[in-house]
Amino acid sequence: MSRIAYVNGQYVRHGDAAVHVEDRGYQFADGVYEVCEVWQGNIVDMPRHLDRLNRSLTELRIDWPMSRAAVEFVLRQVIRRNRVRNGLVYIQVTRGVSRRDHYFPPEDVAPSIVVTARSSNPDAARAQAEQGIAVVSYPENRWPRVDIKTIALLPNVLAKQHAKEQGGKEAWYVDSNGYVTEGGSTNAWIVTKDGAVVTRAAESGILRGITRTVVLELIEKEGLTFEERPFSLEEALEAKEAFVTAASTVVMPVTRVDGRIIGNGHPGTVATRLRELFRTATDLQAV
Amino acid sequence: MSRIAYVNGQYVRHGDAAVHVEDRGYQFADGVYEVCEVWQGNIVDMPRHLDRLNRSLTELRIDWPMSRAAVEFVLRQVIRRNRVRNGLVYIQVTRGVSRRDHYFPPEDVAPSIVVTARSSNPDAARAQAEQGIAVVSYPENRWPRVDIKTIALLPNVLAKQHAKEQGGKEAWYVDSNGYVTEGGSTNAWIVTKDGAVVTRAAESGILRGITRTVVLELIEKEGLTFEERPFSLEEALEAKEAFVTAASTVVMPVTRVDGRIIGNGHPGTVATRLRELFRTATDLQAV
Repeated sequence: MSRIAYVNGQYVRHGDAAVHVEDRGYQFADGVYEVCEVWQGNIVDMPRHLDRLNRSLTELRIDWPMSRAAVEFVLRQVIRRNRVRNGLVYIQVTRGVSRRDHYFPPEDVAPSIVVTARSSNPDAARAQAEQGIAVVSYPENRWPRVDIKTIALLPNVLAKQHAKEQGGKEAWYVDSNGYVTEGGSTNAWIVTKDGAVVTRAAESGILRGITRTVVLELIEKEGLTFEERPFSLEEALEAKEAFVTAASTVVMPVTRVDGRIIGNGHPGTVATRLRELFRTATDLQAV
Repeated sequence: MSRIAYVNGQYVRHGDAAVHVEDRGYQFADGVYEVCEVWQGNIVDMPRHLDRLNRSLTELRIDWPMSRAAVEFVLRQVIRRNRVRNGLVYIQVTRGVSRRDHYFPPEDVAPSIVVTARSSNPDAARAQAEQGIAVVSYPENRWPRVDIKTIALLPNVLAKQHAKEQGGKEAWYVDSNGYVTEGGSTNAWIVTKDGAVVTRAAESGILRGITRTVVLELIEKEGLTFEERPFSLEEALEAKEAFVTAASTVVMPVTRVDGRIIGNGHPGTVATRLRELFRTATDLQAV
Protein backbone atom coordinates (compact mmCIF):
# COMPACT_ATOMS: atom_id res chain seq x y z
CA MET A 1 0.00 0.00 0.00
CA SER A 2 1.42 3.38 -0.93
CA ARG A 3 1.28 6.11 1.65
CA ILE A 4 -1.39 8.81 1.37
CA ALA A 5 -1.13 12.49 2.24
CA TYR A 6 -3.75 15.20 2.41
CA VAL A 7 -2.80 18.39 0.56
CA ASN A 8 -5.16 21.34 0.25
CA GLY A 9 -8.40 19.45 -0.20
CA GLN A 10 -7.17 16.24 -1.78
CA TYR A 11 -5.92 12.86 -0.66
CA VAL A 12 -2.94 12.05 -2.86
CA ARG A 13 -0.22 9.43 -3.08
CA HIS A 14 2.61 10.45 -0.76
CA GLY A 15 5.03 10.62 -3.69
CA ASP A 16 2.75 13.11 -5.43
CA ALA A 17 2.16 15.27 -2.36
CA ALA A 18 3.37 18.67 -3.53
CA VAL A 19 2.92 22.35 -2.81
CA HIS A 20 3.63 25.34 -4.99
CA VAL A 21 7.14 26.80 -4.87
CA GLU A 22 5.60 30.13 -3.85
CA ASP A 23 3.82 28.60 -0.88
CA ARG A 24 4.91 30.92 1.92
CA GLY A 25 5.92 27.90 3.93
CA TYR A 26 8.63 27.20 1.36
CA GLN A 27 9.97 30.72 0.85
CA PHE A 28 9.41 32.36 4.26
CA ALA A 29 8.85 29.60 6.86
CA ASP A 30 5.53 31.37 7.27
CA GLY A 31 3.56 28.57 8.88
CA VAL A 32 2.97 26.37 11.91
CA TYR A 33 2.65 22.67 12.61
CA GLU A 34 1.71 19.97 15.10
CA VAL A 35 2.93 16.41 15.54
CA CYS A 36 0.54 14.11 17.39
CA GLU A 37 1.17 10.61 18.59
CA VAL A 38 -1.17 7.93 17.27
CA TRP A 39 -1.62 5.16 19.82
CA GLN A 40 -3.87 2.19 19.25
CA GLY A 41 -5.46 4.08 16.38
CA ASN A 42 -6.32 7.07 18.57
CA ILE A 43 -4.81 10.56 18.25
CA VAL A 44 -3.35 11.19 21.69
CA ASP A 45 -4.53 14.47 23.24
CA MET A 46 -5.94 15.71 19.95
CA PRO A 47 -8.02 18.52 21.52
CA ARG A 48 -4.93 19.97 23.20
CA HIS A 49 -2.93 19.79 19.97
CA LEU A 50 -5.68 21.59 18.07
CA ASP A 51 -5.94 24.18 20.86
CA ARG A 52 -2.23 24.83 20.48
CA LEU A 53 -2.50 24.91 16.69
CA ASN A 54 -5.22 27.51 17.14
CA ARG A 55 -2.92 29.57 19.37
CA SER A 56 -0.04 29.33 16.87
CA LEU A 57 -2.31 30.40 14.01
CA THR A 58 -3.74 33.24 16.06
CA GLU A 59 -0.31 34.55 17.03
CA LEU A 60 0.72 34.65 13.35
CA ARG A 61 -2.71 35.83 12.18
CA ILE A 62 -3.15 32.88 9.83
CA ASP A 63 -6.73 31.69 9.36
CA TRP A 64 -7.77 28.10 9.88
CA PRO A 65 -7.66 26.46 6.44
CA MET A 66 -10.99 24.84 7.25
CA SER A 67 -13.11 24.27 10.33
CA ARG A 68 -11.58 22.56 13.31
CA ALA A 69 -14.08 19.72 12.90
CA ALA A 70 -12.97 19.27 9.29
CA VAL A 71 -9.32 19.19 10.38
CA GLU A 72 -10.15 16.49 12.93
CA PHE A 73 -11.89 14.52 10.21
CA VAL A 74 -8.88 14.80 7.88
CA LEU A 75 -6.42 13.78 10.61
CA ARG A 76 -8.49 10.64 11.24
CA GLN A 77 -8.85 9.95 7.51
CA VAL A 78 -5.12 10.19 6.88
CA ILE A 79 -4.43 7.84 9.79
CA ARG A 80 -7.04 5.41 8.52
CA ARG A 81 -5.92 5.56 4.89
CA ASN A 82 -2.33 4.87 5.96
CA ARG A 83 -3.48 2.12 8.35
CA VAL A 84 -1.52 3.71 11.18
CA ARG A 85 -2.23 2.03 14.49
CA ASN A 86 0.84 3.32 16.33
CA GLY A 87 2.80 6.21 14.89
CA LEU A 88 2.60 9.92 14.23
CA VAL A 89 0.26 12.26 12.41
CA TYR A 90 1.68 15.58 11.17
CA ILE A 91 -0.25 18.71 10.26
CA GLN A 92 1.21 21.85 8.75
CA VAL A 93 -0.63 25.08 7.96
CA THR A 94 0.98 27.97 6.10
CA ARG A 95 -0.13 31.42 4.99
CA GLY A 96 -0.78 30.07 1.50
CA VAL A 97 0.51 30.66 -2.02
CA SER A 98 1.21 34.17 -3.23
CA ARG A 99 3.71 36.09 -5.37
CA ARG A 100 6.89 36.38 -3.30
CA ASP A 101 6.72 39.41 -1.01
CA HIS A 102 7.48 39.55 2.72
CA TYR A 103 4.25 41.34 3.61
CA PHE A 104 1.16 39.25 4.30
CA PRO A 105 -0.58 38.37 1.02
CA PRO A 106 -3.99 39.74 0.01
CA GLU A 107 -6.97 38.69 2.15
CA ASP A 108 -8.29 36.29 -0.49
CA VAL A 109 -5.20 34.05 -0.35
CA ALA A 110 -6.23 30.83 1.39
CA PRO A 111 -3.93 29.11 3.90
CA SER A 112 -2.35 25.82 2.85
CA ILE A 113 -2.80 22.61 4.79
CA VAL A 114 -0.83 19.38 4.60
CA VAL A 115 -1.44 16.26 6.69
CA THR A 116 0.77 13.16 6.67
CA ALA A 117 0.91 10.10 8.89
CA ARG A 118 3.31 7.25 9.39
CA SER A 119 3.62 4.15 11.49
CA SER A 120 6.30 3.64 14.08
CA ASN A 121 7.54 0.63 15.93
CA PRO A 122 6.44 0.58 19.60
CA ASP A 123 9.01 -2.13 20.36
CA ALA A 124 11.86 0.05 19.11
CA ALA A 125 10.57 2.99 21.17
CA ARG A 126 10.29 0.76 24.25
CA ALA A 127 13.83 -0.55 23.73
CA GLN A 128 15.08 3.02 23.43
CA ALA A 129 13.28 4.01 26.63
CA GLU A 130 14.76 1.04 28.47
CA GLN A 131 18.23 2.16 27.43
CA GLY A 132 17.81 5.92 27.72
CA ILE A 133 19.28 8.56 25.43
CA ALA A 134 22.26 10.89 25.48
CA VAL A 135 21.77 14.64 25.17
CA VAL A 136 24.31 17.28 24.17
CA SER A 137 24.17 20.91 25.29
CA TYR A 138 23.99 23.68 22.69
CA PRO A 139 23.98 27.49 23.08
CA GLU A 140 20.45 28.88 22.90
CA ASN A 141 20.33 30.82 19.63
CA ARG A 142 16.69 30.90 18.60
CA TRP A 143 14.39 33.90 18.40
CA PRO A 144 12.30 34.69 21.50
CA ARG A 145 8.99 33.50 19.98
CA VAL A 146 9.70 29.80 20.47
CA ASP A 147 6.33 29.70 22.24
CA ILE A 148 4.83 29.61 18.72
CA LYS A 149 5.23 26.23 17.02
CA THR A 150 6.49 27.56 13.69
CA ILE A 151 8.16 25.73 10.83
CA ALA A 152 11.18 28.08 11.05
CA LEU A 153 13.10 25.12 12.47
CA LEU A 154 16.52 25.58 10.90
CA PRO A 155 18.15 26.46 14.27
CA ASN A 156 16.66 23.27 15.74
CA VAL A 157 17.92 21.24 12.79
CA LEU A 158 21.46 22.50 13.34
CA ALA A 159 21.32 21.92 17.10
CA LYS A 160 20.00 18.38 16.75
CA GLN A 161 22.50 17.55 14.02
CA HIS A 162 25.28 18.79 16.31
CA ALA A 163 23.97 16.55 19.09
CA LYS A 164 23.88 13.58 16.75
CA GLU A 165 27.45 14.15 15.66
CA GLN A 166 28.46 14.21 19.33
CA GLY A 167 26.79 10.85 19.88
CA GLY A 168 23.51 12.23 21.28
CA LYS A 169 19.86 11.94 20.30
CA GLU A 170 18.77 15.37 21.49
CA ALA A 171 20.26 18.84 21.98
CA TRP A 172 19.57 20.80 25.15
CA TYR A 173 19.59 24.54 24.62
CA VAL A 174 21.45 26.42 27.34
CA ASP A 175 20.78 30.15 27.66
CA SER A 176 23.34 32.86 28.40
CA ASN A 177 22.71 32.41 32.15
CA GLY A 178 23.63 28.75 31.99
CA TYR A 179 20.06 27.50 32.28
CA VAL A 180 18.63 24.73 30.13
CA THR A 181 15.64 26.05 28.18
CA GLU A 182 14.41 23.01 26.28
CA GLY A 183 15.46 20.39 23.75
CA GLY A 184 15.63 20.77 19.98
CA SER A 185 12.24 19.06 19.73
CA THR A 186 11.42 18.09 23.33
CA ASN A 187 10.93 19.63 26.77
CA ALA A 188 13.71 19.05 29.31
CA TRP A 189 13.31 17.70 32.86
CA ILE A 190 15.44 16.60 35.79
CA VAL A 191 14.81 14.87 39.12
CA THR A 192 16.95 16.32 41.90
CA LYS A 193 18.78 14.27 44.53
CA ASP A 194 15.91 15.21 46.88
CA GLY A 195 13.46 13.63 44.45
CA ALA A 196 11.89 16.85 43.17
CA VAL A 197 10.85 16.82 39.53
CA VAL A 198 11.95 20.07 37.87
CA THR A 199 11.07 21.68 34.56
CA ARG A 200 11.07 25.22 33.29
CA ALA A 201 7.90 27.32 33.29
CA ALA A 202 6.21 27.44 29.91
CA GLU A 203 6.09 31.25 30.11
CA SER A 204 9.83 31.67 29.64
CA GLY A 205 11.47 30.83 26.37
CA ILE A 206 10.04 27.39 25.64
CA LEU A 207 7.16 25.76 23.85
CA ARG A 208 4.25 24.66 26.03
CA GLY A 209 4.54 20.96 25.24
CA ILE A 210 1.35 18.92 25.23
CA THR A 211 3.13 15.88 26.66
CA ARG A 212 4.73 18.23 29.21
CA THR A 213 1.26 19.37 30.33
CA VAL A 214 -0.04 15.82 30.62
CA VAL A 215 3.06 14.76 32.58
CA LEU A 216 2.51 17.69 34.95
CA GLU A 217 -0.96 16.35 35.64
CA LEU A 218 0.42 12.86 36.24
CA ILE A 219 3.01 14.28 38.64
CA GLU A 220 0.26 16.00 40.58
CA LYS A 221 -1.91 12.86 40.67
CA GLU A 222 1.04 10.82 41.88
CA GLY A 223 1.78 13.38 44.57
CA LEU A 224 5.40 13.81 43.45
CA THR A 225 7.32 16.87 44.58
CA PHE A 226 7.44 19.32 41.69
CA GLU A 227 9.28 22.57 41.07
CA GLU A 228 8.52 24.65 38.00
CA ARG A 229 11.73 26.65 37.61
CA PRO A 230 14.79 26.89 35.39
CA PHE A 231 17.62 24.45 36.09
CA SER A 232 21.23 24.94 35.08
CA LEU A 233 23.33 22.57 33.02
CA GLU A 234 25.48 21.99 36.13
CA GLU A 235 22.41 21.03 38.14
CA ALA A 236 21.39 18.62 35.39
CA LEU A 237 24.82 16.96 35.45
CA GLU A 238 24.42 16.35 39.21
CA ALA A 239 20.77 15.28 38.99
CA LYS A 240 19.44 11.90 40.06
CA GLU A 241 17.53 11.58 36.79
CA ALA A 242 16.86 13.44 33.61
CA PHE A 243 14.33 12.95 30.86
CA VAL A 244 12.66 14.63 27.89
CA THR A 245 9.05 14.75 26.78
CA ALA A 246 7.38 15.19 23.39
CA ALA A 247 4.52 13.65 21.46
CA SER A 248 7.02 11.76 19.33
CA THR A 249 9.05 10.31 22.22
CA VAL A 250 6.49 10.40 25.07
CA VAL A 251 8.63 10.31 28.26
CA MET A 252 12.20 9.41 27.31
CA PRO A 253 14.86 8.89 30.00
CA VAL A 254 18.18 10.69 29.58
CA THR A 255 21.19 8.78 30.85
CA ARG A 256 24.00 11.01 29.61
CA VAL A 257 24.45 14.76 29.24
CA ASP A 258 27.55 16.01 27.42
CA GLY A 259 29.10 12.59 27.94
CA ARG A 260 28.57 12.68 31.72
CA ILE A 261 26.57 9.85 33.22
CA ILE A 262 23.35 10.96 34.94
CA GLY A 263 22.41 9.13 38.16
CA ASN A 264 23.47 5.50 37.87
CA GLY A 265 23.54 5.62 34.09
CA HIS A 266 20.23 3.81 33.71
CA PRO A 267 16.73 5.18 33.15
CA GLY A 268 15.47 6.63 36.43
CA THR A 269 12.52 5.30 38.39
CA VAL A 270 10.55 8.54 38.16
CA ALA A 271 10.95 8.81 34.37
CA THR A 272 10.10 5.16 33.92
CA ARG A 273 7.06 5.47 36.17
CA LEU A 274 5.84 8.59 34.33
CA ARG A 275 6.26 6.84 31.00
CA GLU A 276 4.12 3.95 32.23
CA LEU A 277 1.48 6.29 33.61
CA PHE A 278 1.43 8.23 30.34
CA ARG A 279 0.98 5.00 28.40
CA THR A 280 -1.84 3.89 30.71
CA ALA A 281 -3.58 7.22 30.19
CA THR A 282 -3.27 6.95 26.41
CA ASP A 283 -4.48 3.35 26.53
CA LEU A 284 -7.60 4.67 28.23
CA GLN A 285 -8.02 7.40 25.57
CA ALA A 286 -7.83 4.72 22.90
CA VAL A 287 -10.63 2.64 24.37
CA MET B 1 2.95 34.01 -22.28
CA SER B 2 2.74 32.03 -19.07
CA ARG B 3 5.59 32.35 -16.62
CA ILE B 4 8.20 29.61 -16.44
CA ALA B 5 10.04 28.31 -13.39
CA TYR B 6 12.92 25.90 -13.06
CA VAL B 7 12.38 23.15 -10.48
CA ASN B 8 14.88 20.36 -9.89
CA GLY B 9 15.96 19.82 -13.46
CA GLN B 10 12.88 20.91 -15.36
CA TYR B 11 11.45 24.09 -16.81
CA VAL B 12 7.75 24.10 -15.92
CA ARG B 13 4.81 26.45 -16.15
CA HIS B 14 4.85 28.70 -13.10
CA GLY B 15 1.45 27.41 -12.00
CA ASP B 16 2.79 23.86 -12.01
CA ALA B 17 6.02 24.69 -10.17
CA ALA B 18 5.81 22.44 -7.13
CA VAL B 19 8.01 20.75 -4.55
CA HIS B 20 7.31 17.77 -2.35
CA VAL B 21 5.67 18.43 1.02
CA GLU B 22 8.65 16.74 2.67
CA ASP B 23 11.13 19.07 1.01
CA ARG B 24 13.13 20.28 4.00
CA GLY B 25 12.59 23.82 2.86
CA TYR B 26 8.88 23.37 3.55
CA GLN B 27 9.06 21.59 6.89
CA PHE B 28 12.27 22.97 8.44
CA ALA B 29 13.23 26.19 6.60
CA ASP B 30 16.37 24.19 5.83
CA GLY B 31 17.58 26.16 2.84
CA VAL B 32 19.07 29.37 1.47
CA TYR B 33 18.29 31.80 -1.31
CA GLU B 34 19.44 34.75 -3.38
CA VAL B 35 17.52 37.52 -5.12
CA CYS B 36 19.38 39.23 -7.99
CA GLU B 37 18.36 42.27 -9.91
CA VAL B 38 17.99 41.88 -13.67
CA TRP B 39 18.84 45.09 -15.48
CA GLN B 40 18.78 45.43 -19.24
CA GLY B 41 18.72 41.65 -19.45
CA ASN B 42 21.87 41.26 -17.34
CA ILE B 43 22.03 39.69 -13.88
CA VAL B 44 23.55 42.44 -11.75
CA ASP B 45 26.61 41.31 -9.78
CA MET B 46 25.90 37.63 -10.45
CA PRO B 47 29.38 36.43 -9.42
CA ARG B 48 29.00 38.08 -6.02
CA HIS B 49 25.55 36.60 -5.53
CA LEU B 50 26.83 33.13 -6.36
CA ASP B 51 29.82 33.64 -4.05
CA ARG B 52 27.41 34.47 -1.26
CA LEU B 53 25.18 31.52 -2.16
CA ASN B 54 28.26 29.36 -1.91
CA ARG B 55 29.01 30.75 1.54
CA SER B 56 25.41 30.17 2.72
CA LEU B 57 25.47 26.59 1.43
CA THR B 58 28.85 25.96 3.02
CA GLU B 59 27.74 27.32 6.40
CA LEU B 60 24.74 24.96 6.38
CA ARG B 61 26.69 22.10 4.80
CA ILE B 62 24.30 21.83 1.86
CA ASP B 63 25.87 20.72 -1.42
CA TRP B 64 25.46 22.68 -4.62
CA PRO B 65 22.52 21.10 -6.47
CA MET B 66 24.58 21.26 -9.66
CA SER B 67 27.72 23.01 -10.81
CA ARG B 68 27.98 26.76 -10.45
CA ALA B 69 28.23 27.04 -14.23
CA ALA B 70 24.99 25.08 -14.59
CA VAL B 71 23.29 27.36 -12.06
CA GLU B 72 24.42 30.41 -14.05
CA PHE B 73 23.01 28.81 -17.20
CA VAL B 74 19.66 28.13 -15.53
CA LEU B 75 19.42 31.67 -14.13
CA ARG B 76 19.93 33.05 -17.63
CA GLN B 77 17.49 30.55 -19.15
CA VAL B 78 14.75 31.42 -16.68
CA ILE B 79 15.24 35.12 -17.37
CA ARG B 80 15.16 34.51 -21.10
CA ARG B 81 12.15 32.20 -21.03
CA ASN B 82 10.23 34.79 -19.00
CA ARG B 83 11.42 37.61 -21.27
CA VAL B 84 12.61 39.57 -18.26
CA ARG B 85 14.55 42.66 -19.26
CA ASN B 86 14.26 44.50 -15.95
CA GLY B 87 13.18 42.62 -12.86
CA LEU B 88 14.34 40.00 -10.39
CA VAL B 89 15.60 36.45 -10.55
CA TYR B 90 15.19 34.28 -7.46
CA ILE B 91 17.09 31.11 -6.59
CA GLN B 92 16.40 28.84 -3.64
CA VAL B 93 18.36 25.75 -2.62
CA THR B 94 17.24 23.42 0.16
CA ARG B 95 18.61 20.26 1.74
CA GLY B 96 16.23 18.19 -0.38
CA VAL B 97 13.37 15.78 0.15
CA SER B 98 13.51 13.24 2.93
CA ARG B 99 11.25 11.59 5.52
CA ARG B 100 10.62 14.20 8.20
CA ASP B 101 13.40 14.16 10.80
CA HIS B 102 15.37 17.10 12.16
CA TYR B 103 18.76 15.49 11.56
CA PHE B 104 20.40 15.94 8.17
CA PRO B 105 19.07 13.33 5.74
CA PRO B 106 21.20 10.49 4.33
CA GLU B 107 24.11 11.47 2.07
CA ASP B 108 22.31 10.34 -1.09
CA VAL B 109 19.51 12.90 -0.72
CA ALA B 110 20.04 15.56 -3.38
CA PRO B 111 19.49 19.24 -2.63
CA SER B 112 16.47 20.91 -4.24
CA ILE B 113 16.77 23.93 -6.50
CA VAL B 114 14.08 26.36 -7.63
CA VAL B 115 14.61 29.38 -9.89
CA THR B 116 11.94 31.95 -10.75
CA ALA B 117 12.06 35.33 -12.45
CA ARG B 118 9.70 38.21 -12.89
CA SER B 119 9.64 41.60 -14.54
CA SER B 120 9.37 44.82 -12.63
CA ASN B 121 8.58 48.34 -13.68
CA PRO B 122 11.65 50.64 -13.65
CA ASP B 123 9.39 53.71 -13.84
CA ALA B 124 7.58 52.71 -10.65
CA ALA B 125 10.91 52.09 -8.91
CA ARG B 126 12.20 55.47 -10.07
CA ALA B 127 9.04 57.21 -8.86
CA GLN B 128 9.44 55.50 -5.50
CA ALA B 129 13.07 56.60 -5.27
CA GLU B 130 12.10 60.18 -6.11
CA GLN B 131 9.61 60.16 -3.27
CA GLY B 132 11.56 58.11 -0.71
CA ILE B 133 10.14 55.56 1.69
CA ALA B 134 9.15 55.50 5.35
CA VAL B 135 10.73 52.99 7.73
CA VAL B 136 9.48 51.81 11.11
CA SER B 137 11.72 50.55 13.90
CA TYR B 138 11.26 47.07 15.28
CA PRO B 139 13.01 45.25 18.16
CA GLU B 140 15.73 42.93 16.86
CA ASN B 141 14.47 39.42 17.55
CA ARG B 142 16.22 37.18 15.05
CA TRP B 143 18.75 34.49 15.72
CA PRO B 144 22.45 35.49 15.58
CA ARG B 145 23.15 33.73 12.27
CA VAL B 146 21.55 36.41 10.08
CA ASP B 147 24.86 36.44 8.21
CA ILE B 148 23.53 33.31 6.44
CA LYS B 149 20.84 34.09 3.87
CA THR B 150 18.39 31.40 4.99
CA ILE B 151 14.73 30.97 4.13
CA ALA B 152 13.82 31.02 7.85
CA LEU B 153 12.31 34.45 7.20
CA LEU B 154 9.25 34.39 9.44
CA PRO B 155 10.70 37.04 11.82
CA ASN B 156 11.39 39.29 8.82
CA VAL B 157 7.85 38.74 7.54
CA LEU B 158 6.39 39.84 10.87
CA ALA B 159 8.68 42.87 11.13
CA LYS B 160 7.92 44.05 7.59
CA GLN B 161 4.19 43.47 8.03
CA HIS B 162 4.33 45.57 11.23
CA ALA B 163 6.11 48.34 9.31
CA LYS B 164 3.49 48.22 6.57
CA GLU B 165 0.68 48.50 9.08
CA GLN B 166 2.41 51.58 10.54
CA GLY B 167 2.55 53.17 7.10
CA GLY B 168 6.13 52.15 6.27
CA LYS B 169 7.77 50.15 3.50
CA GLU B 170 10.60 48.71 5.56
CA ALA B 171 11.31 47.74 9.18
CA TRP B 172 14.58 48.71 10.82
CA TYR B 173 15.70 46.27 13.47
CA VAL B 174 16.98 47.96 16.63
CA ASP B 175 19.10 45.87 18.99
CA SER B 176 18.98 45.92 22.79
CA ASN B 177 21.63 48.68 22.85
CA GLY B 178 19.49 50.96 20.71
CA TYR B 179 21.50 50.45 17.54
CA VAL B 180 19.97 49.83 14.14
CA THR B 181 21.18 46.49 12.78
CA GLU B 182 19.55 46.29 9.33
CA GLY B 183 16.21 46.29 7.59
CA GLY B 184 13.80 43.38 7.20
CA SER B 185 15.19 42.79 3.69
CA THR B 186 17.68 45.66 3.19
CA ASN B 187 20.83 47.14 4.72
CA ALA B 188 20.43 50.42 6.62
CA TRP B 189 22.46 53.62 6.11
CA ILE B 190 22.53 57.22 7.27
CA VAL B 191 24.40 60.37 6.27
CA THR B 192 25.36 62.47 9.30
CA LYS B 193 25.05 66.26 9.51
CA ASP B 194 28.83 66.33 8.84
CA GLY B 195 28.26 64.46 5.60
CA ALA B 196 29.69 61.11 6.68
CA VAL B 197 28.02 58.03 5.24
CA VAL B 198 27.51 55.45 7.99
CA THR B 199 26.56 51.80 7.93
CA ARG B 200 27.13 48.91 10.27
CA ALA B 201 30.04 46.50 9.76
CA ALA B 202 29.01 43.28 8.07
CA GLU B 203 30.70 41.29 10.81
CA SER B 204 28.11 42.15 13.45
CA GLY B 205 24.60 40.89 13.21
CA ILE B 206 23.72 41.68 9.61
CA LEU B 207 23.82 40.14 6.19
CA ARG B 208 26.69 41.19 3.94
CA GLY B 209 24.54 42.78 1.25
CA ILE B 210 25.82 42.64 -2.32
CA THR B 211 24.39 46.07 -3.11
CA ARG B 212 25.90 47.27 0.19
CA THR B 213 29.34 46.09 -0.98
CA VAL B 214 28.97 47.77 -4.38
CA VAL B 215 27.80 51.00 -2.75
CA LEU B 216 30.85 50.91 -0.45
CA GLU B 217 33.03 50.79 -3.55
CA LEU B 218 31.16 53.71 -5.10
CA ILE B 219 31.58 55.72 -1.89
CA GLU B 220 35.29 55.11 -2.00
CA LYS B 221 35.53 56.05 -5.68
CA GLU B 222 33.57 59.24 -5.03
CA GLY B 223 35.85 60.09 -2.12
CA LEU B 224 32.92 60.43 0.30
CA THR B 225 33.60 60.33 4.03
CA PHE B 226 32.62 56.91 5.30
CA GLU B 227 32.30 55.38 8.76
CA GLU B 228 31.64 51.68 9.17
CA ARG B 229 30.07 51.54 12.63
CA PRO B 230 26.72 51.00 14.33
CA PHE B 231 24.38 53.98 14.51
CA SER B 232 21.55 54.37 16.99
CA LEU B 233 17.91 54.99 16.18
CA GLU B 234 18.29 58.45 17.79
CA GLU B 235 21.22 59.26 15.50
CA ALA B 236 19.16 58.16 12.51
CA LEU B 237 16.31 60.47 13.52
CA GLU B 238 18.76 63.41 13.60
CA ALA B 239 20.58 62.41 10.40
CA LYS B 240 20.80 64.53 7.28
CA GLU B 241 19.82 61.58 5.13
CA ALA B 242 18.94 57.93 5.41
CA PHE B 243 18.64 55.17 2.84
CA VAL B 244 18.46 51.41 2.40
CA THR B 245 20.14 49.10 -0.08
CA ALA B 246 19.21 45.72 -1.55
CA ALA B 247 19.23 44.02 -4.92
CA SER B 248 15.46 44.50 -5.13
CA THR B 249 15.46 48.22 -4.27
CA VAL B 250 19.00 49.26 -5.29
CA VAL B 251 19.64 52.48 -3.29
CA MET B 252 16.33 53.69 -1.84
CA PRO B 253 16.13 57.00 0.04
CA VAL B 254 14.39 57.00 3.43
CA THR B 255 12.48 60.19 4.22
CA ARG B 256 10.72 59.16 7.42
CA VAL B 257 11.66 56.97 10.39
CA ASP B 258 8.96 56.17 12.93
CA GLY B 259 6.95 59.06 11.52
CA ARG B 260 9.76 61.57 12.04
CA ILE B 261 10.93 63.44 8.97
CA ILE B 262 14.59 62.85 8.06
CA GLY B 263 16.54 65.87 6.78
CA ASN B 264 14.24 68.05 4.74
CA GLY B 265 11.78 65.23 4.09
CA HIS B 266 13.01 64.66 0.53
CA PRO B 267 15.49 62.11 -0.84
CA GLY B 268 19.00 63.23 0.07
CA THR B 269 21.65 64.24 -2.40
CA VAL B 270 24.07 61.50 -1.33
CA ALA B 271 21.48 58.72 -1.65
CA THR B 272 20.30 60.07 -4.98
CA ARG B 273 23.86 60.35 -6.26
CA LEU B 274 24.70 56.80 -5.11
CA ARG B 275 21.59 55.49 -6.83
CA GLU B 276 22.64 57.15 -10.09
CA LEU B 277 26.17 55.82 -9.79
CA PHE B 278 24.86 52.33 -9.08
CA ARG B 279 22.62 52.52 -12.14
CA THR B 280 25.52 53.72 -14.28
CA ALA B 281 27.63 50.81 -13.07
CA THR B 282 24.88 48.30 -13.87
CA ASP B 283 24.34 49.91 -17.27
CA LEU B 284 28.00 49.19 -17.94
CA GLN B 285 27.64 45.57 -16.76
CA ALA B 286 24.73 45.16 -19.18
CA VAL B 287 26.70 46.31 -22.19
